[in-house]
Amino acid sequence: MAGLHIRSVLVTGSNRGIGLELIKRFIGKPNPPEVIFATCRDPDGARAQELKNLASKHPNVMILQLEATDPGSIKAAAKKAEAHLGGSGLNLLINNAGVMPPSTLESATSEDMLNVYKINVVGPLLVTQAFLPLLKKAAQGSNQKGMSCSKAAIVNISTVLGSIEKTPESFFFVPVVSYRCSKAALNMLTKCQSMGYKDAGILCTALHPGWVQTELGNFQSNVQADLTVDESVNGLMKVMCNLSEKHHGILVTWEGNTLPW
Amino acid sequence: MAGLHIRSVLVTGSNRGIGLELIKRFIGKPNPPEVIFATCRDPDGARAQELKNLASKHPNVMILQLEATDPGSIKAAAKKAEAHLGGSGLNLLINNAGVMPPSTLESATSEDMLNVYKINVVGPLLVTQAFLPLLKKAAQGSNQKGMSCSKAAIVNISTVLGSIEKTPESFFFVPVVSYRCSKAALNMLTKCQSMGYKDAGILCTALHPGWVQTELGNFQSNVQADLTVDESVNGLMKVMCNLSEKHHGILVTWEGNTLPW
Ligand SMILES: NC(=O)c1ccc[n+]([C@@H]2O[C@H](COP(=O)([O-])OP(=O)(O)OC[C@H]3O[C@@H](n4cnc5c(N)ncnc54)[C@H](OP(=O)(O)O)[C@@H]3O)[C@@H](O)[C@H]2O)c1
Ligand SMILES: NC(=O)c1ccc[n+]([C@@H]2O[C@H](COP(=O)([O-])OP(=O)(O)OC[C@H]3O[C@@H](n4cnc5c(N)ncnc54)[C@H](OP(=O)(O)O)[C@@H]3O)[C@@H](O)[C@H]2O)c1
Repeated sequence: MAGLHIRSVLVTGSNRGIGLELIKRFIGKPNPPEVIFATCRDPDGARAQELKNLASKHPNVMILQLEATDPGSIKAAAKKAEAHLGGSGLNLLINNAGVMPPSTLESATSEDMLNVYKINVVGPLLVTQAFLPLLKKAAQGSNQKGMSCSKAAIVNISTVLGSIEKTPESFFFVPVVSYRCSKAALNMLTKCQSMGYKDAGILCTALHPGWVQTELGNFQSNVQADLTVDESVNGLMKVMCNLSEKHHGILVTWEGNTLPW
Repeated sequence: MAGLHIRSVLVTGSNRGIGLELIKRFIGKPNPPEVIFATCRDPDGARAQELKNLASKHPNVMILQLEATDPGSIKAAAKKAEAHLGGSGLNLLINNAGVMPPSTLESATSEDMLNVYKINVVGPLLVTQAFLPLLKKAAQGSNQKGMSCSKAAIVNISTVLGSIEKTPESFFFVPVVSYRCSKAALNMLTKCQSMGYKDAGILCTALHPGWVQTELGNFQSNVQADLTVDESVNGLMKVMCNLSEKHHGILVTWEGNTLPW
C-alpha cells in the first residue's frame, strides 16, 4: 500500500455526508495533512455547525466558502487557498459536492436537468480550472515518480448510476434520470481531464462511494442504503492510498474495482 | 434487410446538414412516408429556404417550428403534429438538432456547458416527452412483432465523441469538451429511454453519423471531415432499416457497428 502522504487536500461539499467524513479521516490520520481545505456553500449557516466545531479544534482545517454553481465564489476560494498555502501547491482535490433530486423520464424538466448538471458537472469543471495552478505546482514540486494522490490528483466523486452499461441493474429502483445523465457527463469530464492533465503529472480518477446512508443516499424513505458513511469512507481512503497511473481516467469503486462506462 | 416502411417520421434540425439530407432521403424513397415532419427553429428565416422549396414540391412534407431549448415551442409542434396525423401515431422520431462549439478544459465556461447541454440533451428529452403519446400510438397500432424503426422508434443522433472509452483517440484533435460531456449524457439518456419505453415497444438507439462535411463537422477550417453528407446519410438510412431489439439501448455507427460507451 503506497499510503497517503499529503501536505494539502481540498474537499468540496464537506459540511455533511461523505465530504464531512473525508475531512474527519484526514484530520485523524497518523500523519495528517498540514492544510485541509473544507469547503461548503454556507459556512455561517446551521448546516455547517459540525464542520465549524471541527475546525475550531484542528488548526490545520480551513473552511472556505464555495458554491459550486458560482464562478466568483470558486475563484475567491482558490485565491484564499493560494494565499494560505504560501507558495506550495495543492496535492489532492476532491470534487465531492453533488445533488440527486428525484427525476423520471416523465417528470424531468429543463430546470431540473440544468440545475443538476450545473452542480454535478459544471461545478467540478470550474473548481478544477480554478485550482489547477495549485495542483500543477504540487506536481512540479514533487520528486515522486509516477502518479498518486500524494503527489497531485483530482478525484471526482461519481457513481455507478453514471455507468451507462450498468443502468439496467438500477433503472427502475433509483428514478434519477437527471442525476444519471449528469454523472455520465462527469465521467466523460474525468476522462477529458485525464487526457489534458496527464503531461502535468496530475492523476484524474472518478470514484464510486457505494450506496451510502447520507441525505442524498437515503432518497427513498422506505429503503435503507447499503453502507454507513463510515464503511464507505473507509473504502475510499484505502482506494485513494493506492491510486496510480493504472487508475488514470477510469471509474473505481470504494472497494477498488473498475466499473465500465 | 427489414426495409423501412413507415407512415410518419419527424426529424429535428432539418433545415440543413444531416437533418436536411434525411428529409430528402425519406422523400425520395420508392415508398415514401405519408407524413414527413421537418422541424427547424426558424421556418421563416433564410436558413430554411431549401427546406421550404422542398416542402412546396412535396405535399407529404410538413414544416414545424421547433426550438429545442423552448418547451413551449416543442409542445406546440407536438400539438400540430397530432392534429395533422388525425388519429394515427408517429413511427420514427429522429432527434438530430445539435451544436458543437469549440471548448477546451481551459476555455469551457458555465454558459458554454449549459447551453450545449440544453440543446444536445435537454432538447431530445423534451422532444421525446412531447411526442411520446404519438410514438406509443404507433406501437400500439402496429401488428409487427419485435422492435423496428417501421413500428415505433426514437433515434438520437449522438457521436463517437460521446464515447468515454474512445476519447483518447480524438481528444487533442477535436477540442470540444462541452460537446463530449453533452453527448455522453445523451448516450445515458438513450439508455434510460430504452429502459423506460421497452414495454411500450418503442426502439431507442443512438447513432453516430461519422465525421461529416456539414457546418458542424467542418469545425476546423484546415481539416476536412471524412464523409460527405450523402455518404453518411446513405449509411444512416441503411442502418435504420435494420435496427431491431438487438440495437435497443446501444450506440451504433453509420456503418452498423456498435461503439463502446
Ligand atoms: N450517498 C450515496 O449513496 C452516493 C452514491 C454515489 C455517489 N454519491 C456522490 O457522493 C457525493 C457526496 O454525496 P453525499 O451522499 O455525501 O450527499 P449529501 O450528504 O447530500 O451531501 C452533499 C454535499 O454537497 C453539497 N452541495 C450540494 N449542492 C452544492 C452546491 N451547489 N455548491 C456547493 N456544495 C453543494 C451539500 O451542501 P449543503 O449542505 O449546503 O446542501 C453537501 O455538503 C455526491 O457527489 C454524490 O453524487 C453518493
Ligand atoms: N457533422 C458531423 O461530423 C457529426 C458527427 C457526429 C455527430 N453529429 C451530430 O449530427 C447532428 C446534426 O449535425 P450536422 O452535422 O448536420 O450539423 P449542422 O449542419 O450544423 O446542423 C445542425 C442543425 O441543428 C439545428 N439546431 C441547432 N441548435 C438548435 C436549437 N436550439 N433548436 C433547434 N434546432 C437547432 C440547426 O438549426 P439552425 O440552422 O437554425 O442553426 C441545424 O438544423 C448533431 O446532433 C451532431 O451532433 C454530427
